[in-house]
Amino acid sequence: MANNEKKKIITISREFGSGGRIIGKRLAEKLGVPYYDRDLLDRIAEESGFSREMIETAEKKAKNGFLYSLASAMGTGEAGPESLSLNERFFLAQFDTIRKIAEEEGSCVIVGRCADYILRGYPYATNVFIYAEEADKIKRAVEEYGVPEDQVKKVMKETDKARANYYAYHTGRKWGEHVNFNLSIDSGYLEIEDIVDLIIYYSERQIWRQTTLD
Amino acid sequence: MANNEKKKIITISREFGSGGRIIGKRLAEKLGVPYYDRDLLDRIAEESGFSREMIETAEKKAKNGFLYSLASAMGTGEAGPESLSLNERFFLAQFDTIRKIAEEEGSCVIVGRCADYILRGYPYATNVFIYAEEADKIKRAVEEYGVPEDQVKKVMKETDKARANYYAYHTGRKWGEHVNFNLSIDSGYLEIEDIVDLIIYYSERQIWRQTTLD
Repeated sequence: MANNEKKKIITISREFGSGGRIIGKRLAEKLGVPYYDRDLLDRIAEESGFSREMIETAEKKAKNGFLYSLASAMGTGEAGPESLSLNERFFLAQFDTIRKIAEEEGSCVIVGRCADYILRGYPYATNVFIYAEEADKIKRAVEEYGVPEDQVKKVMKETDKARANYYAYHTGRKWGEHVNFNLSIDSGYLEIEDIVDLIIYYSERQIWRQTTLD
Repeated sequence: MANNEKKKIITISREFGSGGRIIGKRLAEKLGVPYYDRDLLDRIAEESGFSREMIETAEKKAKNGFLYSLASAMGTGEAGPESLSLNERFFLAQFDTIRKIAEEEGSCVIVGRCADYILRGYPYATNVFIYAEEADKIKRAVEEYGVPEDQVKKVMKETDKARANYYAYHTGRKWGEHVNFNLSIDSGYLEIEDIVDLIIYYSERQIWRQTTLD
């Protein structure tokens, strides 16, 4: 890796309605680096041989499944029925793809996909968590994401619950805890562009530590 | 208040060994504003009529007391024996003093003292939490605070436990949760001066919201 000094991988985890995805996109545009969120599934599909549809269906099924939240509540990653062990295999493919991007390619921004966990200890990663107060998230979800007003609380709650379950199941960690991030930002008190600049400001000054991927 | 547009109150909550106090001090120096941490006790003493020694003794007793951690574990602020209700009165005096500073005076930096809670909803406050990985906190506590190496883990654990108990008892909230802060920063990955600048960067761009103290 010739250009490690300038290499940066910024991972963004976010609550539904916090604007984390938009922040990640603008960050990638501003830094001129690739942006990955669900697009990562295409890469994972390509490299693992599974079809994207297959991965999406299994993920959806697993995220909403009773066994998923049970397993995450119990803090166990024990293999369950067919759909779960398939999902485990997809997660491993995702793990490999994200590590490959981090080790073999240049800078990028990754939103979601447990990337903060997958890149824990990675010296060139900046892990960011974006959250907001409930009223702010509702406003954004209705006005910007177009979620119907009478459904927004339910959608918000279920989306974050699915994210928390997915994260806890695969990582054994509690989703959204500050200890897993370099920086946690309430997006309700800054303009999106200022948040983007704040993250760049942080990552440009970040001390790269001689840790290695375990 | 003539000069609200430029008024800023930055509160810093911090884990033992994270450097939060030093960050608060440098922040106040750089902004040219008053800095309060334990000095606040003098103000509280002055305004409440209690002596500083009296407040310190009662706080110490209460923070380490069994009833304090019991009450905080049960999430109740019910009055206990003499020392607790005295401590409650000190907390109220502290509450009044911090509110008075926020409403009647100019910008300042306040470290600890539940200031984030006392100023919740206050439109000119930036609430920051400083934390770090355990190894980083140990290193700082030994090298910079001079804590003996064979006692550092114990001191760190007990100090943070006392802070968490004190905070939970008086606020009914869990100490250190990101939702209570505008910004949470791992101090292990930036130089102190860069953290100071990052906080200034945030607070200069912060959207002042039309909330009021409740």
